[in-house]
Amino acid sequence: MLQTTRLQPGAGLDPFFNARAIAIIGASDDPTKIGGRPLHLLKKHGFAGALFPVNPKGGSIQSLPAYTSVRDVPQVPELAIIAVPAAMAPAALSDCADKGVLAAIVLSSGFIEAGEEGAALQRQLSQIARERQIRVLGPNCLGAVGIEERVIGTFSVALEEKLPAAGHVGIVSQSGNLGSFTMQSVVRRGMGISRFMATGNEADVDIADGIAALARDSQTRIILCCMETCRDGSKLLQALEAARAAGKVVVVLKIGATEQGQAAAASHTGALTGSNAVIEAALTRAGALTVQSIEDMVELTAALSVVPQALLPRNRGVTLVAASGGFGVMMADAMVQAGLDLPELSDATRARIQEAVPVAGTRNPVDATAQMSSRPDILYKLLTALLEDASRSTLVLLLSLSLHNPRLSGVYQEALAQIRRDYPDRLIVLIGQGPADVTERIANAGIAIFPTIDAAARGLAGMVRLGQTLGQPPTVPAAAQNWEPLDAQVFRNEFHAKAFLARAGVPVTQEQVVQSADAAVAAAEQIGFPVVFKIVSPDIAHKTEVGGVELNIRSAAQARTAHAQLLARVAERAPQAQIDGVLVAPMVGGGVEMITGISHDAAFGPVVMVGMGGIYAEVLKDVAVQVAPVTQAEALQMIASLKLYPLLQGVRGQPAADVQAMAATVARLSELALAYAGEIAEIDLNPVLVQPAGEGVIAVDALMVAARPQA
Amino acid sequence: MLQTTRLQPGAGLDPFFNARAIAIIGASDDPTKIGGRPLHLLKKHGFAGALFPVNPKGGSIQSLPAYTSVRDVPQVPELAIIAVPAAMAPAALSDCADKGVLAAIVLSSGFIEAGEEGAALQRQLSQIARERQIRVLGPNCLGAVGIEERVIGTFSVALEEKLPAAGHVGIVSQSGNLGSFTMQSVVRRGMGISRFMATGNEADVDIADGIAALARDSQTRIILCCMETCRDGSKLLQALEAARAAGKVVVVLKIGATEQGQAAAASHTGALTGSNAVIEAALTRAGALTVQSIEDMVELTAALSVVPQALLPRNRGVTLVAASGGFGVMMADAMVQAGLDLPELSDATRARIQEAVPVAGTRNPVDATAQMSSRPDILYKLLTALLEDASRSTLVLLLSLSLHNPRLSGVYQEALAQIRRDYPDRLIVLIGQGPADVTERIANAGIAIFPTIDAAARGLAGMVRLGQTLGQPPTVPAAAQNWEPLDAQVFRNEFHAKAFLARAGVPVTQEQVVQSADAAVAAAEQIGFPVVFKIVSPDIAHKTEVGGVELNIRSAAQARTAHAQLLARVAERAPQAQIDGVLVAPMVGGGVEMITGISHDAAFGPVVMVGMGGIYAEVLKDVAVQVAPVTQAEALQMIASLKLYPLLQGVRGQPAADVQAMAATVARLSELALAYAGEIAEIDLNPVLVQPAGEGVIAVDALMVAARPQA
Repeated sequence: MLQTTRLQPGAGLDPFFNARAIAIIGASDDPTKIGGRPLHLLKKHGFAGALFPVNPKGGSIQSLPAYTSVRDVPQVPELAIIAVPAAMAPAALSDCADKGVLAAIVLSSGFIEAGEEGAALQRQLSQIARERQIRVLGPNCLGAVGIEERVIGTFSVALEEKLPAAGHVGIVSQSGNLGSFTMQSVVRRGMGISRFMATGNEADVDIADGIAALARDSQTRIILCCMETCRDGSKLLQALEAARAAGKVVVVLKIGATEQGQAAAASHTGALTGSNAVIEAALTRAGALTVQSIEDMVELTAALSVVPQALLPRNRGVTLVAASGGFGVMMADAMVQAGLDLPELSDATRARIQEAVPVAGTRNPVDATAQMSSRPDILYKLLTALLEDASRSTLVLLLSLSLHNPRLSGVYQEALAQIRRDYPDRLIVLIGQGPADVTERIANAGIAIFPTIDAAARGLAGMVRLGQTLGQPPTVPAAAQNWEPLDAQVFRNEFHAKAFLARAGVPVTQEQVVQSADAAVAAAEQIGFPVVFKIVSPDIAHKTEVGGVELNIRSAAQARTAHAQLLARVAERAPQAQIDGVLVAPMVGGGVEMITGISHDAAFGPVVMVGMGGIYAEVLKDVAVQVAPVTQAEALQMIASLKLYPLLQGVRGQPAADVQAMAATVARLSELALAYAGEIAEIDLNPVLVQPAGEGVIAVDALMVAARPQA
Repeated sequence: MLQTTRLQPGAGLDPFFNARAIAIIGASDDPTKIGGRPLHLLKKHGFAGALFPVNPKGGSIQSLPAYTSVRDVPQVPELAIIAVPAAMAPAALSDCADKGVLAAIVLSSGFIEAGEEGAALQRQLSQIARERQIRVLGPNCLGAVGIEERVIGTFSVALEEKLPAAGHVGIVSQSGNLGSFTMQSVVRRGMGISRFMATGNEADVDIADGIAALARDSQTRIILCCMETCRDGSKLLQALEAARAAGKVVVVLKIGATEQGQAAAASHTGALTGSNAVIEAALTRAGALTVQSIEDMVELTAALSVVPQALLPRNRGVTLVAASGGFGVMMADAMVQAGLDLPELSDATRARIQEAVPVAGTRNPVDATAQMSSRPDILYKLLTALLEDASRSTLVLLLSLSLHNPRLSGVYQEALAQIRRDYPDRLIVLIGQGPADVTERIANAGIAIFPTIDAAARGLAGMVRLGQTLGQPPTVPAAAQNWEPLDAQVFRNEFHAKAFLARAGVPVTQEQVVQSADAAVAAAEQIGFPVVFKIVSPDIAHKTEVGGVELNIRSAAQARTAHAQLLARVAERAPQAQIDGVLVAPMVGGGVEMITGISHDAAFGPVVMVGMGGIYAEVLKDVAVQVAPVTQAEALQMIASLKLYPLLQGVRGQPAADVQAMAATVARLSELALAYAGEIAEIDLNPVLVQPAGEGVIAVDALMVAARPQA
């Protein structure tokens, strides 16, 4: 069940980053303890505001006067850091609310992750947060940090030595460890941090709040997010929309991509979560970049932090250059595997390459030999030829370790500086490693440098996707319309389901239900032979298993026999079943088998699915999902993402299938899903026969399942 | 066409690494020139043998007396380094042969990579090498290096500053740049080098020679190979077999995995090469580890260089431990994606985990919380519980950046040292980064450390594969047998092809060819209805396109009609075709459709293929290939590697298919391929119907193509 969103995502989170007075509840004199470390770090790293240690013993803690209760603190702290045992946390939080504290970080563990008793304590925290209007981060979390303001609400050992430099990378993570490691990795890569937030058990503030808060934060330009689970899909999408509207990139490391990983995440977070496929699809549509590893996340962030958004490419073409054919081959492999293309260079371009480097291999990837780095003017001539090629591809230049060689480094730097001046509107990507001062100088000129070929390929693919997404407006849901009230009988059997779907604009076979052999013959003659008979019963889910289907009936005589035999078989094999009649339907053949349907995701609500039909597709799990509604264009993208999509484009001389009609059906179903969200749990159309282009689609079988009434 | 192998692979290559007298032909006084650099490096890095610069100008070069010809050199150099213009290289090589030089490196470019004129020059080098028994490395190559002996036959800038430390990693590469970058990367990772060889255009010495030479080399323990192309498959397999026999691991970076990469490699090397799929399959069967990137290669090498072969695991199970649930999820994802398994831990193990760390999550991946690193004895207790679990999985412990923290580092080092002492027979894998001295100390104790989760997952998967492979004996080809002489008519039509295949032990449908309607009826009655008729003609490849097939004939009357109609249609649509008769075959149905066949690979000769049948499989390119012959067990592995393999195991209530019978058929075909290698170019069985387990397979259609007579 979706949580009620009482606030805009991210509202009231500022104190976690910029509080000027902080109470530490459960403060300790020992700077290695969880109650001692935040105070120690705040003091050590020069927090300029007021600090109020609170401990029932009173006295002095880490050289500051301690208070026995937060109530006694002489001013109202904006932020409280709570490090008392779990059982005492609700009372401490309640005291904070009484005092007027705006936000509290509960660092303590022992809540939902520790069993039912802890879960009850966590529910108390949630309730206090909601009722008393105090924002709560955690419990069982690594807290929050505002770097510029020196607000350090964490016990992370990562800050023991020194605080990261202030910068524009904000980090939100459910796992404290992952978030902390991400922060350290970003710092080691030479970038600065704006804010850090680890949401832990998410009794109140969740990852969507964190993203939304950073979307509004003026210090943050790039938002990194480590996500294990999503509890509230629509809130997450709102937060991502806020980031997009603010022109900020969100890079998401979504962990739990495999079944084993998902199982581990579920047992670890104790959350009822949406499916990974739905989360991935929703994130992608919302414009977030998803990555598979922290290393990829960090390299992509490094690139995005130096490359202006206006330079992000909108086409997938890359022109690859190396001093060696072998490296060219490796780059080609990696780029193609990352989904990028290698367009052919024009004859004019190839002539210009040869003019610059006579011994060069002039196809893409360009083998420019060691000669390319013999003089800056030669390199400049070569690179400008590539940049001016009609394909307008992104230029990727492999340097390997050349920047470590002073002579080569000089040549590269001089040529690249001139290229940057003369082609300010083009993305340039380098692959290589070198002394930090040199790579920094190049990066600061707006040139992306990746350390390895693989990192470059995956990073560039992400930058292209971002370039394509940034131009796109967010999806506008279909206009509201008057939907008919739902009659419960649509869930009773296939006939009523199809009748409802037909009225709703979903193409299904036209059928009749009959109660006698005579009526069956009449219906068959009206529909036209050949026809199919199917048993109609609310008690029979799998018709073929009880002999409840007769195919390819070609005459009135056959119809009579088939009708009698069908009823006899069903009476024998399913004697208890209530029989609503016999369905007479046209025998539809041809076309490509697909499946589509809607269901309900625990985090995102109504979702729509489309896939190839048949046993092969089932083995391959060849389906695409998306949160409802989807436009026809989005449905088309879903269809095009299927592994077996080439089947729809026509193979072995088959005509191309009517994917537009299929996409329209998927889009229509997704609107239905939204309109009847509380009433329909599931619709399955299987199979849908997709006819040749222009001839439409038709659903041959349909099943509708009612939503369980909400408790 | 395969090159004739006149020598054992790798024979006569020692001088490239350990020559004690070296002539440099085309020597230059300028140490930055290609003719000056090797001499400069040899002197700079302390080569202790005799050096003889050769230059028509004579005089003194780099302070050494120069000779106008190699003939004038006062002793016989074992090695010559040739750096003269391409056109002069054949004469220089010939002079070396006259002098009695054993081996020559041709650094110069301008050969096959530069066009037809260069190709002719290269052919001259090949001819001299072959006829005069002088081994030639190159041309257009980066040469060879023997580190210990200071034999530096290269102009690589990578050696400009200093020579790598001597070690046990040998490198063979076709691309000089890739090889050089690999060497630098290995050195940066803290390992030493034994030998380096870049084979360039391979006029004589090829990559197989290099592998074989390193297999025999006492200084080399691990062989790294960067491969763009394979010109002689059987020689490569011999070399890999030599490495396996010597107990040395070969790690291969095979570039050109994508079509675009292959196209680039082909245009770059100018070689007619075997298919990438065949090379990959052959490498894997020969026990080589294939990797996708230099980074993976280097990390795997680092692990293999500290872990004794006896510790390599034979099962794919991993037990994962981290101080954080989030990292556990990430590890689970990466390990599963790399093909490893996460077995469940026993209840006893889980109890022991909880005893060590009461708040731990005890499922695999184990969330051991920060408590695991609070004391060495706690960590020891935890890890021993995991090592003693019944699953005997490999223990993988995530440290992230903890080794940078002195307190945590101490805990980890103490516990790990004790674990190493108490469990000397188990592989332990760490994931993390730390100060070089600490990570080195741990690694030198025989514990593998990978810097990232992804590197660990891919590296460990490679180590498991190696553990499984090392125990296996090489494939023994099937015993020779008397095969019948091949009659040319097997290529004439399906009937003769099937008759031959049936005699050779390949299950095909039993059929008759008839010349009249009466005979057709008689044959059908003998075979038993229903039957199929197919036109038999050497001129008709696609029978259905000319209406040459009649299916499901159920009676004598139908047979007569069908026979007449079939012949009438064919006469109309293919009036010129020579008709051999009509094939009467049983109508076979049921089972899973597969395809299998043999063909000829440019580098490896006869290969066998197996795949799923039907249009879905075609779209997915769902096939496996291997060099012939294969055993039934190997064929079974090929079948099990198919994406749609689950279809054969029985889905949707279908019985499991007879994969053993299919594997036997594939194995038998592969023996045929070898026995008739010069005569049969191709056999296609499509479809083969695989019946339920125990009921065999049957090939429904067969095509055989004759090999073109060798020129």
